[in-house]
Amino acid sequence: MEKKTLLTDCPDAMGLISKITNICYKHQLNIVHNNEFVDHSHSQFFMRTELEGYFNDETFLFDLDRALPEGSQRRLIGSERKRIVIMVTKEAHCLGDILVKTFDGTLDIEIAAIVGNYDHLAELARNFGIPYHHISHEGISRDEHEALLLETVQQYTPDYVVLAKYMRILTPNFVAQFPHKIINIHHSFLPAFIGAKPYQQAFERGVKIIGATAHFVTNDLDEGPIITQNVIPVDHNFSAKDMARAGKDVEKSVLSKALGLVIDDRVFVHGNRTVIL
Amino acid sequence: MEKKTLLTDCPDAMGLISKITNICYKHQLNIVHNNEFVDHSHSQFFMRTELEGYFNDETFLFDLDRALPEGSQRRLIGSERKRIVIMVTKEAHCLGDILVKTFDGTLDIEIAAIVGNYDHLAELARNFGIPYHHISHEGISRDEHEALLLETVQQYTPDYVVLAKYMRILTPNFVAQFPHKIINIHHSFLPAFIGAKPYQQAFERGVKIIGATAHFVTNDLDEGPIITQNVIPVDHNFSAKDMARAGKDVEKSVLSKALGLVIDDRVFVHGNRTVIL
Amino acid sequence: MEKKTLLTDCPDAMGLISKITNICYKHQLNIVHNNEFVDHSHSQFFMRTELEGYFNDETFLFDLDRALPEGSQRRLIGSERKRIVIMVTKEAHCLGDILVKTFDGTLDIEIAAIVGNYDHLAELARNFGIPYHHISHEGISRDEHEALLLETVQQYTPDYVVLAKYMRILTPNFVAQFPHKIINIHHSFLPAFIGAKPYQQAFERGVKIIGATAHFVTNDLDEGPIITQNVIPVDHNFSAKDMARAGKDVEKSVLSKALGLVIDDRVFVHGNRTVIL
Amino acid sequence: MEKKTLLTDCPDAMGLISKITNICYKHQLNIVHNNEFVDHSHSQFFMRTELEGYFNDETFLFDLDRALPEGSQRRLIGSERKRIVIMVTKEAHCLGDILVKTFDGTLDIEIAAIVGNYDHLAELARNFGIPYHHISHEGISRDEHEALLLETVQQYTPDYVVLAKYMRILTPNFVAQFPHKIINIHHSFLPAFIGAKPYQQAFERGVKIIGATAHFVTNDLDEGPIITQNVIPVDHNFSAKDMARAGKDVEKSVLSKALGLVIDDRVFVHGNRTVIL
Repeated sequence: MEKKTLLTDCPDAMGLISKITNICYKHQLNIVHNNEFVDHSHSQFFMRTELEGYFNDETFLFDLDRALPEGSQRRLIGSERKRIVIMVTKEAHCLGDILVKTFDGTLDIEIAAIVGNYDHLAELARNFGIPYHHISHEGISRDEHEALLLETVQQYTPDYVVLAKYMRILTPNFVAQFPHKIINIHHSFLPAFIGAKPYQQAFERGVKIIGATAHFVTNDLDEGPIITQNVIPVDHNFSAKDMARAGKDVEKSVLSKALGLVIDDRVFVHGNRTVIL
Repeated sequence: MEKKTLLTDCPDAMGLISKITNICYKHQLNIVHNNEFVDHSHSQFFMRTELEGYFNDETFLFDLDRALPEGSQRRLIGSERKRIVIMVTKEAHCLGDILVKTFDGTLDIEIAAIVGNYDHLAELARNFGIPYHHISHEGISRDEHEALLLETVQQYTPDYVVLAKYMRILTPNFVAQFPHKIINIHHSFLPAFIGAKPYQQAFERGVKIIGATAHFVTNDLDEGPIITQNVIPVDHNFSAKDMARAGKDVEKSVLSKALGLVIDDRVFVHGNRTVIL
Repeated sequence: MEKKTLLTDCPDAMGLISKITNICYKHQLNIVHNNEFVDHSHSQFFMRTELEGYFNDETFLFDLDRALPEGSQRRLIGSERKRIVIMVTKEAHCLGDILVKTFDGTLDIEIAAIVGNYDHLAELARNFGIPYHHISHEGISRDEHEALLLETVQQYTPDYVVLAKYMRILTPNFVAQFPHKIINIHHSFLPAFIGAKPYQQAFERGVKIIGATAHFVTNDLDEGPIITQNVIPVDHNFSAKDMARAGKDVEKSVLSKALGLVIDDRVFVHGNRTVIL
Repeated sequence: MEKKTLLTDCPDAMGLISKITNICYKHQLNIVHNNEFVDHSHSQFFMRTELEGYFNDETFLFDLDRALPEGSQRRLIGSERKRIVIMVTKEAHCLGDILVKTFDGTLDIEIAAIVGNYDHLAELARNFGIPYHHISHEGISRDEHEALLLETVQQYTPDYVVLAKYMRILTPNFVAQFPHKIINIHHSFLPAFIGAKPYQQAFERGVKIIGATAHFVTNDLDEGPIITQNVIPVDHNFSAKDMARAGKDVEKSVLSKALGLVIDDRVFVHGNRTVIL
């Protein structure tokens, strides 16, 4: 018996749940979990179905494609472990959290490689036996640097690229190679404090809550679809530096949570929003 | 076109979603929202289906009953406003919150009456034009008091009875009249601090978080199925009295939230737990 | 024995706590609670001291003024109940919460009057026996409307003006009459979603958390010093309307909490930030 | 210039803040931060004072001791890094978090050694260059095992012992060696679910929120003074195993936060409660 996940993203129509689940039933596939969502304002239907049984992918998908309306997207995903490349700069907390969670099995991923524009985290990567590529941006052009990065990342054919506090902005060329495959952690409660130094901005505005946002990277800085967010309270005792320190825990837990949702195939991108089933 | 909600609670079996949604489809009923949950450890299936269309209840339920396994429970609930009786003692915050939310339409209920064992809240009830029954427990036996309460409450044939800080324990006889129909707010994060004076207990234990729990009332004190809970942080600056004051906001929002879930027919009772769809 | 609160806001200097508490001691005033904060980046000292004893305000303040550095501000505030005027538009939840909390003593304030640019909430005000002034903005100029508002509010000589979902922007002239005396609730987690329709903005951005912000009103829209904020989680199931509905509870609790802090004389304004002691 | 922290814990009396801060002033010690708390119900005064200057400990403490009431405790603590021994069983998340936070400087501690009753975490310790002692409890008596543990831990003369999911109960003899020096993480929101398998207990009770509690270890199981707690929401979708998985993040952040407070000398033990300044 195998486990697979069926993701359906299609125009809404009457009888969709019935049609899809009928096909599962006909193929003797047991529905372990099922979640659906209809965006009534856009008449779009989303369904995530965890299936168990003996799969004939070809005939199953053939039946589905006949039943689904035009313009439908559906994916049948096996339970293979996802391959991840992590990009970092200097800060250890997000990377460290993913490493420990992978070490103890909380995150069921394969970390293929870590790529950093500094070598500060090479030792940490080595401690966990993960290849570390130090690709400095110094002394070369932005385009040259990204070409090196891209070549390095692509050789691992990752399912997802995780920016674990990678502090440089990726160009459209890089982003285009990994559509909805790059997950970033931004150290603010977006859309507050877009851009550089969000904790300094938060301090100056005098907010009483700070946060972190994990999102897919698009070409609009800090504007990609949000996967998850979380916050912590602060008060007048917090300098911008204190906020940055306190924010580390929420950054890493938000990034790890987002990564967990993505590798479990729970995240649909829907315009600039996400549907998480 | 009408809106109704179908609640299905039955032994798990292969093809259930398919069968139920097929029947909806066949009856030309549109599924507006659908949520299901399978408790795999108990092999029990729960589904809540919001339907829209022209209903023939008899034939629809007949078809359903033929399709569902033995031991199934299903209810088709119309969209009539629920009738509520609220029981209180002296504290105004939970009652006040329900009154204001009903006044402004946030809670779509009919408050049939308010029953108090003191008259402290009679004025507040009157301000909102709701009948208030002052049924003092003084000078009469527990059984006499409850007989009076029961008679008063039952004359309103409520869908649900809400204990909005009603500070006396109801007897099994009373509870038996309203199985899973009495919602209580307990001013602690149950199962911590069962029984009397939970804030005093919390203070003495030196907890750093306090909470409130809304649950269905059963014959085991503070042991009924939990509907929802919430918490707030406290610290050494809080006396037991400060905790009680700070806890009011969480009590009232937890009770109102639970009531909202219940009147939207989202809450299944499953053993001593709830499934909320 | 009386209770008073001393608020000190002055340039930082060595020995300040010692000097101030010495003067309290010399005047036989018992310190019930004391909190201080130094903003080291601006070398500014803040202290809030709850005192108990027999006060000779004149000699006590004379001694203080001799001890404090140049440029100091200090206020000695008695324990009289603060007088509040509340301004509203159509929504009941924030007003209702303040009314119920005042009714049951959770907020120890005197609500002198309620002023609305619609009459939707007149009945609710009347239920609680508070004068309601309906001052419509229709058919008159902005300046005429504000002149009427100002005249009405000022006749009550309020300590604070609370905008409990008052949905019009006040002009600089109005704001200037009540410096750091007008408390507003904004229905977003500022600085995200400044301006109109924040829930619609939040929905379109696809955020996973929404919030509310209570702040002092200045002439920069939604830019005044923040008093307190809180948030709640949302997900793809929430339409903008659902967010607005869910946000009501957090709006009202944030506004009531801010009002509680302000009337307890806990809030110092420090540039565009607040220090809460 | 040195930095030291003065902790005062004494019977309340009029003029205490004045007396203590006078002595600081007289010794030309600058107060960088100061926090005090009076437990009025027990007439006990607590103050934490961060001082900067040139210290003559002997004369400073002599002056203090003359000024403070009988029964006072005061400690003047230098800014040396605290030495920690961590005890573990099999789970990596709490240990991993402390290791990464120490690696990147978020926790400013010296991890002297890690002691485990299994060898599951030896590799993780080795990755970070920390000595790991595997002291199995198998094949020996409880007393023999604890004698070995005690000998091993004591050779490092730790300031604090951290139980990072050490799953065995320590005997009174062990605890007595480290009064208020052993910090434990319990995987429930105490006092709910004391003892074994708290997530299983939480699942069975059907709670909607789970949590974790960091506390000092005393001889009463899970009854020691609570340092900090935090919670996360759960629902009917969570099995006991899911709760355990989801709880890991809150366990580790609560333990690390408690450890941070303790090593910053912010935690006073007051009966069975803590005062955190």
